[in-house]
Amino acid sequence: MYKVVLVRHGESVWNQENRFTGWTDVDLTEKGVHEAIKAGEVLKSLPYEIDIAFTSVLKRAIKTLDYILAENDLLWVPVRKSWKLNERHYGALQGLNKQETAEKYGEEQVKLWRRSYDVPPLPITAEDERYPKNDRRYGLLTEQEIPLGESLKDTIARVVPYWEAEIVPHIKAGEHVLVVAHGNSLRALMKVLENISDEDIVDLNIPTAVPILYELDDDLKPLHRRFLGDQERVQEKIDVVANPSKIME
Amino acid sequence: MYKVVLVRHGESVWNQENRFTGWTDVDLTEKGVHEAIKAGEVLKSLPYEIDIAFTSVLKRAIKTLDYILAENDLLWVPVRKSWKLNERHYGALQGLNKQETAEKYGEEQVKLWRRSYDVPPLPITAEDERYPKNDRRYGLLTEQEIPLGESLKDTIARVVPYWEAEIVPHIKAGEHVLVVAHGNSLRALMKVLENISDEDIVDLNIPTAVPILYELDDDLKPLHRRFLGDQERVQEKIDVVANPSKIME
Repeated sequence: MYKVVLVRHGESVWNQENRFTGWTDVDLTEKGVHEAIKAGEVLKSLPYEIDIAFTSVLKRAIKTLDYILAENDLLWVPVRKSWKLNERHYGALQGLNKQETAEKYGEEQVKLWRRSYDVPPLPITAEDERYPKNDRRYGLLTEQEIPLGESLKDTIARVVPYWEAEIVPHIKAGEHVLVVAHGNSLRALMKVLENISDEDIVDLNIPTAVPILYELDDDLKPLHRRFLGDQERVQEKIDVVANPSKIME
Repeated sequence: MYKVVLVRHGESVWNQENRFTGWTDVDLTEKGVHEAIKAGEVLKSLPYEIDIAFTSVLKRAIKTLDYILAENDLLWVPVRKSWKLNERHYGALQGLNKQETAEKYGEEQVKLWRRSYDVPPLPITAEDERYPKNDRRYGLLTEQEIPLGESLKDTIARVVPYWEAEIVPHIKAGEHVLVVAHGNSLRALMKVLENISDEDIVDLNIPTAVPILYELDDDLKPLHRRFLGDQERVQEKIDVVANPSKIME
């Protein structure tokens, strides 16, 4: 039986300010740090330890991972960081808060951007300071890889090949894999694992900093999925993110 | 011109208690954390940024690296961790403090263990709880690789091949490399870089958490070596570690 644990990062500064974050590299809030440490404590209850971890190149995920590893005295495990696990790129919406976006584009349009499967946000241009090539960490990406604004479908299209090429081989080698990432990159993974339809995936809400344990059969089909930790607290977190006005990606 | 920066970890709990540490995975002290953050600030003054970092599998080095990277907003850079960059394995001395060791084995013997090039410490046995195979992170090492107690020469014999195979290719590709490691694994690197003799290397004292910048020619011969930061503070640190009663490895 194979195993993988997924964790969404703890609360970030822009979650708190209710801004579209996307690839903006904002830090965890104090609450986010606390959530990450808590996630680390919860993972201690597993009857086995993590062998390798994967995360994005955004500090809210990397720090969440580091707090989890430190809490488990596992800072020594290999950590792979890739932009392929980044949050959905929110194009020209990045930096705007809910109210600004609604005033500028209307509630209906915002809902469409946030809750449709294949509608991309307004794109940025190569002249925009938010253009990824302006950031050294994306320097090696090809023009084709650089997103100007992604739909959930676009995000899934880059996460899944990374999952298959880089993560699955470790799972199949029997290693215990931990992935710490973002609302939409984790949706991509849960879509693949649970074979969720394009229609249903947009409604899947992933609580912040709650470890999600999958036990998988030989074909990596889930035998079991479990949100780890105090179940009342997990349910509260699911309720919060299920309300789209509460947490923005 | 190639570049590499070496940093010795900040003060650890057993540095403070004056115990032989070796492969024991002790944490940084509060002072050690402060030193690491300071090293991060100092690195900000460089006219370029780090592209990739290497460290050991011991948390005092990993944490020092993480504080440096966080301070430079570079948590996203790739980090490679290897036991090959660990501190010298101090065999049966690990855990003993200076006084205990001197009482047990005599001052002369202790001096020999600490300041000779090729005299290994008393070895541990495979039954010892300190035997590396008892620790999951060393599970894949071969019997031949597992140290029971290393001389400085033994340490150098495992650090240098790692340097050549894993680190040098990145330097030669023009990347700016950061290595955060330990007193004796860094001695190995400085010995190779500066072509220091077996006799002289034992007297080379590396200050804690002071970034050492090398600028190298096409053959990786040093054009320039510089201890970065406030020079008075650097000198104080060199004086401290030059007194062998003050800092144990």
